[in-house]
Amino acid sequence: MRCVILGGAGFLGRHVGTAMAAAGNEVWSVDRVTVRPAESAEWLAGEVLTDFSDVASWWPRTGGADVLVHLASTTVPATASADPLADVQGNLLGSLRLLHGLRQQKARPRLLFASSGGAVYGRPQSVPLAETHPTLPMGAYGVTKLAIEHYLRIEEAQHGLPQRVLRLSNPYGPGQRPHAVQGVVAVFAHRALHGLPLSVWGDGSVVRDFVYAGDIGRAFVAAAQHAGHERVFNIGAGSGLSVNDIIAALERLLGVAIAQERQPGRPFDPPVNVLDTRRAHAQLGWQPAVDFDAGLARTLDWLRTQP
Amino acid sequence: MRCVILGGAGFLGRHVGTAMAAAGNEVWSVDRVTVRPAESAEWLAGEVLTDFSDVASWWPRTGGADVLVHLASTTVPATASADPLADVQGNLLGSLRLLHGLRQQKARPRLLFASSGGAVYGRPQSVPLAETHPTLPMGAYGVTKLAIEHYLRIEEAQHGLPQRVLRLSNPYGPGQRPHAVQGVVAVFAHRALHGLPLSVWGDGSVVRDFVYAGDIGRAFVAAAQHAGHERVFNIGAGSGLSVNDIIAALERLLGVAIAQERQPGRPFDPPVNVLDTRRAHAQLGWQPAVDFDAGLARTLDWLRTQP
Repeated sequence: MRCVILGGAGFLGRHVGTAMAAAGNEVWSVDRVTVRPAESAEWLAGEVLTDFSDVASWWPRTGGADVLVHLASTTVPATASADPLADVQGNLLGSLRLLHGLRQQKARPRLLFASSGGAVYGRPQSVPLAETHPTLPMGAYGVTKLAIEHYLRIEEAQHGLPQRVLRLSNPYGPGQRPHAVQGVVAVFAHRALHGLPLSVWGDGSVVRDFVYAGDIGRAFVAAAQHAGHERVFNIGAGSGLSVNDIIAALERLLGVAIAQERQPGRPFDPPVNVLDTRRAHAQLGWQPAVDFDAGLARTLDWLRTQP
Repeated sequence: MRCVILGGAGFLGRHVGTAMAAAGNEVWSVDRVTVRPAESAEWLAGEVLTDFSDVASWWPRTGGADVLVHLASTTVPATASADPLADVQGNLLGSLRLLHGLRQQKARPRLLFASSGGAVYGRPQSVPLAETHPTLPMGAYGVTKLAIEHYLRIEEAQHGLPQRVLRLSNPYGPGQRPHAVQGVVAVFAHRALHGLPLSVWGDGSVVRDFVYAGDIGRAFVAAAQHAGHERVFNIGAGSGLSVNDIIAALERLLGVAIAQERQPGRPFDPPVNVLDTRRAHAQLGWQPAVDFDAGLARTLDWLRTQP
């Protein structure tokens, strides 16, 4: 099968592309930037440098697609909150243009959308969060992710586009940029490797679900083949780690004590977000294979190769 | 109190404005068109002809607002489905600009938003639909209504804007245009008055919740004063009428048999949509006061005055 990854040049793109290629697929990237480094992109059959939402600009050049992985995003939670209008324009309108463009090409690939299990539910009424939990996002990023989910469901009902939604928890792993505004594992691991102190909001007790990016890649492979009636799947570790747990794991793996600078807590951070991943296990036959210490060790190995 | 109605020149604007004025408020309209007919707009203290989302263009001219009723919409369900991008641009981005503009004016009026109880829930899992029912809209119109609800909740949590959401069922009453693409009561009543046959989709058994527009006006007055912790309220009759029931009521009131032309059913119409309005009753002290035959008689009286 031909798999086209929208946003294939990003951190998750490489992990999904690697897993899709290992499963025997021909994998293309559609992104505004090229996949780097090119020498380690043996998973890549080809790429088109363009805006993912302009379907006519890439569909003929990839030769179409059987599976379309939609990882493209112009925002992260912090930038979406800072400018919700730009978030809507880039992501929501971009995704609507994508759906419209696919219809115009009379193209009905299976579309796999990377939504956010950390953003669409809002403050948990119970933990772990199942897919049936109310969706009351507490930030703009979750509002647009959720709206895109709705448009996909409508597109399938009214126009027959097959689709699956993967609500990802917090991904981490090799390739995650350590200087970004999100990705606490990459940021902390990079700073710890370089002997720099860590900035910790509040008392470090905030708990999140961290999932290894390679496991996310395998989840997309499973979702590409899913035949059941469910459409939305939580993809996460299914268990939580606090910020303090991450620091303890880094100290364990590096064999050093890591200095910390405490910052005031952020009142809108829910104290706990852990996904219930039983549906993905039962329906996709998927569960995470890489535990946190092993995934963190691989992340540190990769960071050591970076300037 | 000063009440500014965004979209005050529309069908619901007049009913909300009349109720707000009767409750002692100074009522302004902000709309791209003027309130007509001017001679029957004794409820209106003043109006500003502008785009509701451009807050700087109207806020100084109304002298601000204590209560802001957001009825402005550039679409109805059919036009939103036909062009979801325009729906997002007009309604979702317009509402985000409104929130941004209010923040820039350092204005924190209470914002009352007209959402759609017919669109945000999607296919009912149980009837009547309570506010806690899952929100899985089956059309673009419901997706943007729901997204605006989310942005309002976030705006209150992060920036202190007091807000209430009124999820309206199908409004009808005097002033509803009989030549529009929605508003089955007005369309049927107008055609019946003129001896024209009615177009009925399917077998006429589709059930909807019809609420008299004057009762909606009273619901906004109650929501302007609500002090409890709930934010979302269904506003409807709380009971359902089929299309055939509406025709029977018209035949009863007009004393004639009405010809019908049956059209194929529309597969995406849920068979039943009836709202559970117990929360509005308990929290707002509101319930509908005008039963369907009385409201229909007033609608017919108004239509008889129209060319």
